Amino acid sequence: MDILDVICKRRSTRRFTPDPISDELIQKLLIAATSAPTAANCQPWEFIVVNDSEVLNTIREEMVFARYSAPLAIVVCGNMKLAFKGSGKEMWVQDCSAATENMLIAATGLGLGSVWIGVYPIEHNVNSVRKILDIPDYIVPLNIIYFGYSDEVKESRSRYNEKRVYFNTYDRDRKHRSKDKPKIGHY
Amino acid sequence: MDILDVICKRRSTRRFTPDPISDELIQKLLIAATSAPTAANCQPWEFIVVNDSEVLNTIREEMVFARYSAPLAIVVCGNMKLAFKGSGKEMWVQDCSAATENMLIAATGLGLGSVWIGVYPIEHNVNSVRKILDIPDYIVPLNIIYFGYSDEVKESRSRYNEKRVYFNTYDRDRKHRSKDKPKIGHY
Repeated sequence: MDILDVICKRRSTRRFTPDPISDELIQKLLIAATSAPTAANCQPWEFIVVNDSEVLNTIREEMVFARYSAPLAIVVCGNMKLAFKGSGKEMWVQDCSAATENMLIAATGLGLGSVWIGVYPIEHNVNSVRKILDIPDYIVPLNIIYFGYSDEVKESRSRYNEKRVYFNTYDRDRKHRSKDKPKIGHY
Repeated sequence: MDILDVICKRRSTRRFTPDPISDELIQKLLIAATSAPTAANCQPWEFIVVNDSEVLNTIREEMVFARYSAPLAIVVCGNMKLAFKGSGKEMWVQDCSAATENMLIAATGLGLGSVWIGVYPIEHNVNSVRKILDIPDYIVPLNIIYFGYSDEVKESRSRYNEKRVYFNTYDRDRKHRSKDKPKIGHY
């Protein structure tokens, strides 16, 4: 296995088979998550594993942006009591995002599909997740990650574009437009 | 190669050999970065590759928190003109963090060491990086990632701890202390 193959094979999967994910695989995803680096080693993360079909149904019904059917969701949260203090407090977002990406890459390598549903910093969505999972105020749900065996086929790809790469200094004359997306090429 | 092996092998490396990193490897790191998911596929990232020894020296001298000697730095930036609009604007941090973690995992798989130096949201550090690399106001440097061939030996590990894992609902009675770090166990 080439590492680039796994990384480029990770695509957002929104159709999953109903097959459950084993406890062993869930633990592997969490081992991957907690191997990510964190600012000052503060490890501000907590994880809510959701594999109860009633709770999954509630998430789907109450949050239109998370309406996908998957046998497993993991909600990655930042614990503000454990987060970096002072002006770097918001670094918990980077720590928890790195942990999340580790899970997505691990899932791909383990034969699972996944999709990252962003929650924070959209207050309405943060509150919806808090209500469903009884999450207190000092815990911030960053996202909902769905996992499952994929029921769709997507090709590997990168969106590498040399227009977004500079060497040794920024180039203020280079213009970018939001419509000017890097081509989605095959890797 | 087992994907968990690569993910758990990623450790922060702060001592590198002076051997340069080939253009081919640099491109592979950027291919990995740009394979990460982004909110609404907005791809708000830009990358400044620093491999000029004078620029690397300046970074080291002016920023005590980035004082390591490495043959390569990649500064991952968010372009506010490309970022998600509205209340989710700050999602560029998550997008660029996922891209960063992809580079760290790729580096590990490709035989390189790496270390993530956080820059944003600490204003003083953001401004220092902006000045050195001539970065305009609408571009935010998220971090400085050093890469190189490692000159130190670190064992694989995960910081998995079941105390940070919940099933189907949060448990408000479970207490965490910042001193109560997950054990650093061998994977």
